Amino acid sequence: MIRWNNLDTLDAFKALESDAKVNLAEVLAGEAGAERVKNYSVPMGGGLTYNFGAKKVNDEILADMQKLADEAQLTEKFAELYNGGIVNTGEKRHVLHQLVRGQLGNDVIADGVNKREFYTGVQNRINEFANKVHAGEITNEAGEKFTQVVQIGIGGSDLGPRALYIALENWAKKNNSLKMEARFISNVDPDDASAVLARTDVAHALFVLVSKSGTTLETLTNESFVKDALVKAGLNPSRHMVAVTSDSSPLAKSADYLDAFFMDDYIGGRYSSSSAVGGAVLSLAFGPEVFAEILAGAAEQDQLCKNTDIRKNSSMLDALIGVYERNILGYTSTAVLPYSQALSRFPAHLQQLDMESNGKAVNRFGEKIDYKTGPLIWGEPGTNGQHSFFQLLHQGTDIIPLQFVGFRESQLGNDVVIKGSTSQQKLCANVAAQIVAFACGKTDENPNKVFHGGRPSSIITGQTLTPKSLGALLAHFENKVMFQGFLWNINSFDQEGVQLGKVLATNVLAHNTEGALKVYSDLLEI
Amino acid sequence: MIRWNNLDTLDAFKALESDAKVNLAEVLAGEAGAERVKNYSVPMGGGLTYNFGAKKVNDEILADMQKLADEAQLTEKFAELYNGGIVNTGEKRHVLHQLVRGQLGNDVIADGVNKREFYTGVQNRINEFANKVHAGEITNEAGEKFTQVVQIGIGGSDLGPRALYIALENWAKKNNSLKMEARFISNVDPDDASAVLARTDVAHALFVLVSKSGTTLETLTNESFVKDALVKAGLNPSRHMVAVTSDSSPLAKSADYLDAFFMDDYIGGRYSSSSAVGGAVLSLAFGPEVFAEILAGAAEQDQLCKNTDIRKNSSMLDALIGVYERNILGYTSTAVLPYSQALSRFPAHLQQLDMESNGKAVNRFGEKIDYKTGPLIWGEPGTNGQHSFFQLLHQGTDIIPLQFVGFRESQLGNDVVIKGSTSQQKLCANVAAQIVAFACGKTDENPNKVFHGGRPSSIITGQTLTPKSLGALLAHFENKVMFQGFLWNINSFDQEGVQLGKVLATNVLAHNTEGALKVYSDLLEI
Repeated sequence: MIRWNNLDTLDAFKALESDAKVNLAEVLAGEAGAERVKNYSVPMGGGLTYNFGAKKVNDEILADMQKLADEAQLTEKFAELYNGGIVNTGEKRHVLHQLVRGQLGNDVIADGVNKREFYTGVQNRINEFANKVHAGEITNEAGEKFTQVVQIGIGGSDLGPRALYIALENWAKKNNSLKMEARFISNVDPDDASAVLARTDVAHALFVLVSKSGTTLETLTNESFVKDALVKAGLNPSRHMVAVTSDSSPLAKSADYLDAFFMDDYIGGRYSSSSAVGGAVLSLAFGPEVFAEILAGAAEQDQLCKNTDIRKNSSMLDALIGVYERNILGYTSTAVLPYSQALSRFPAHLQQLDMESNGKAVNRFGEKIDYKTGPLIWGEPGTNGQHSFFQLLHQGTDIIPLQFVGFRESQLGNDVVIKGSTSQQKLCANVAAQIVAFACGKTDENPNKVFHGGRPSSIITGQTLTPKSLGALLAHFENKVMFQGFLWNINSFDQEGVQLGKVLATNVLAHNTEGALKVYSDLLEI
Repeated sequence: MIRWNNLDTLDAFKALESDAKVNLAEVLAGEAGAERVKNYSVPMGGGLTYNFGAKKVNDEILADMQKLADEAQLTEKFAELYNGGIVNTGEKRHVLHQLVRGQLGNDVIADGVNKREFYTGVQNRINEFANKVHAGEITNEAGEKFTQVVQIGIGGSDLGPRALYIALENWAKKNNSLKMEARFISNVDPDDASAVLARTDVAHALFVLVSKSGTTLETLTNESFVKDALVKAGLNPSRHMVAVTSDSSPLAKSADYLDAFFMDDYIGGRYSSSSAVGGAVLSLAFGPEVFAEILAGAAEQDQLCKNTDIRKNSSMLDALIGVYERNILGYTSTAVLPYSQALSRFPAHLQQLDMESNGKAVNRFGEKIDYKTGPLIWGEPGTNGQHSFFQLLHQGTDIIPLQFVGFRESQLGNDVVIKGSTSQQKLCANVAAQIVAFACGKTDENPNKVFHGGRPSSIITGQTLTPKSLGALLAHFENKVMFQGFLWNINSFDQEGVQLGKVLATNVLAHNTEGALKVYSDLLEI
């Protein structure tokens, strides 16, 4: 029997609150500190490792976190979710994004079909389509191969697939897997679509229109933009476009598209990278095998997330540490700092994933809660960040927990040796050094050069960023966010907070406004 | 006589603390709300307007802010700075970034030269060089024109110039001002340089190496990377590179460069976009006239910032409102949300500008201070953000103040009409609607659909994003950060917080580590 209780009613949470706090510089000192870092490590999917040696925990706190995980029934709630429970209570929906990459529990039957079969069926159709495009069996009207793919979508139809594409573009080039270059059009700002189209060879471009409802204003507007460009180039838009949409959408059976691939209501936009939303563009860009590897990495991580032992479940542990930092230590944000240029847009994806899921002030029953929920998530790649906002991270008046990511090898393998080390070694040396600098600080006679330390971080490490490790990384954070939602007792799977602005914008466009709103729209001459 | 006092010792700050707080939904209601929004507006340089109608201020609070500005001697401190006072006390340096774009006060003589003449002299040399490149008088060894320019730099030598380039790339295409496409290499991650070089026509590329000291490890490493690529392509690196550096740097008089343009110690990296650091790459990319327009816009805003009246000085008012939000309302971060795809990397530049300047915990005399300083700065363009993290902004448990930016016209002017409105109108309607939604909220029977409102924002508006308005926008924020530093009584012009990591990284590379640091470096196999 699952109990959905607020975090602050749980005994283990109260125990955690009263545990003595950890002094990072002390626990990281000397041989004991070295042992701690070695031990405070959890294997993840895709060959990754989650190390939390520089987080403000110790064995006592970890024991209470385990109790909290048990008391909050995190494992049971995850099982409820993957076995097809209606966990998205607000919208009364299943939550099935893990099911697209593996069967974790019972068959889930919804809308009269086995959903695992539905998802794999859609992906198989995508694979077949992508293979035909790559083989030159599906071509433009002149019989020429498509060489570029352009995703038109916004929010979850943009950020995740774009982050994953950027993450693997170099890897694919190196491994002869870049079948088609991908581009993305998202913003309703007309300069976005114009600029992307200007550097696209439209005659050889395939456009993937992604909108679940088929009614997202930004996406439909950008579709028209693209169609105009195709027509102006003397091309037939319907020979250059596919749709990813729900089977009930107006796009589903339209002759305007070469083909349509279906999604459903059980996978929210921000969780849809491993569904057809990411599947179409990434299979076209890299080939179906590469996308399958992303799914395999994610599935590996999902399996580990069934573990009740927090020392064997990186997502659950990361979730608990995040809640500890947010609700007991009082930190308001988390920075995601990949020491990997390939992950340059991964923080933007996590920003949506986390903030749209857990930026909620009522619990899953609609009752106001008296504790903080989702933190602000932001970040940029290192070492760039070191030469920018790290000043505030080291010496600012707020403590901001950090999530580093680092790989032992670069993706392309090109490198130079300067002063006895490669660039990749410098990159890795910097991230290792930063962890210790943040945690332990430094004394100095000049107070302006004092670093107080006590700034916690964790690091996810791997050999190199591949489709499989990327999939595991993605699933780690998806599942972390899910476990945090369970802990906060909120519904991580709806997003009512994005609706109001849409209604008001429609009023502005209809000039159906007065008072302050009219003044703002006058200011912008709408 | 200037008094450098801590914020919490100022009478006006205490008065501000005791002022009754503003209820945004109330003050924005009805005709009075419309009047308020009309009145709460300040003209800026470059034809821009700063509107603060949806900030939590009223006439009483504004009067106390004016008193605070006067008591903190913000105008006098700015004058001290532009007249050549040693305002960067930590490093005992002048602070002269405004002087590169205009003479605001007395001549500043340092290092035996008139610094205004020095800066204009450098820029004139850059202009001459850029004109010769564009005219085909300076070419590659084969006598062919350079068509691309690649900046090699990190931190302030990257973020600002990159953000400005992206901001104007479309504008320049539209106005036939794109002389050379620009690219940027910054990260020590070898995949960054490899990827940029792979999409660069190195035979026709001019590289701008930017390092004040000539010793920044990332930049020198990436220079070697580029030289290798040039040599492999059978090219002579010294015919493809210019340096922007200080006259005492090892790069200054090296035969390895076609030319060298000098910077000095009085312009910090994050303030260097309008110096040779931005001047070289942007003059090459867009032509000297365009860069001159950026400077003219910035100079216009600088002039306005001399005003003691906060209602006529957007930077000073924005600074005061920010301090009010940080130190009295207790908000920890500010989101910068440009409704303009061209400004997609402007938030990343502001992140460095603000967080590296004001992320400090000691005052300018090195004494610990008992109040919060610089907030976390982050953001992404709208409408993209609306489909992502806006959920948390609307319904999350923390209030995050917002800085919108919007333009009445797009840069390229291509547009489509869908449902009776252009994309640009949709973009503008959305930002207007969001301001009111954040401020006023919405009631609903379903608690999950309730928006509490009370979330403050300001908006900077303009006709279109041009070099001049961009320059003013840049200067607005530079001067805001400066005024906030004065209010917090900190030194906004040094960055000791970035040093420790460098020292430790060097130790890691030399395998000169033990304990926890050794374990982390082992984890990454350094």
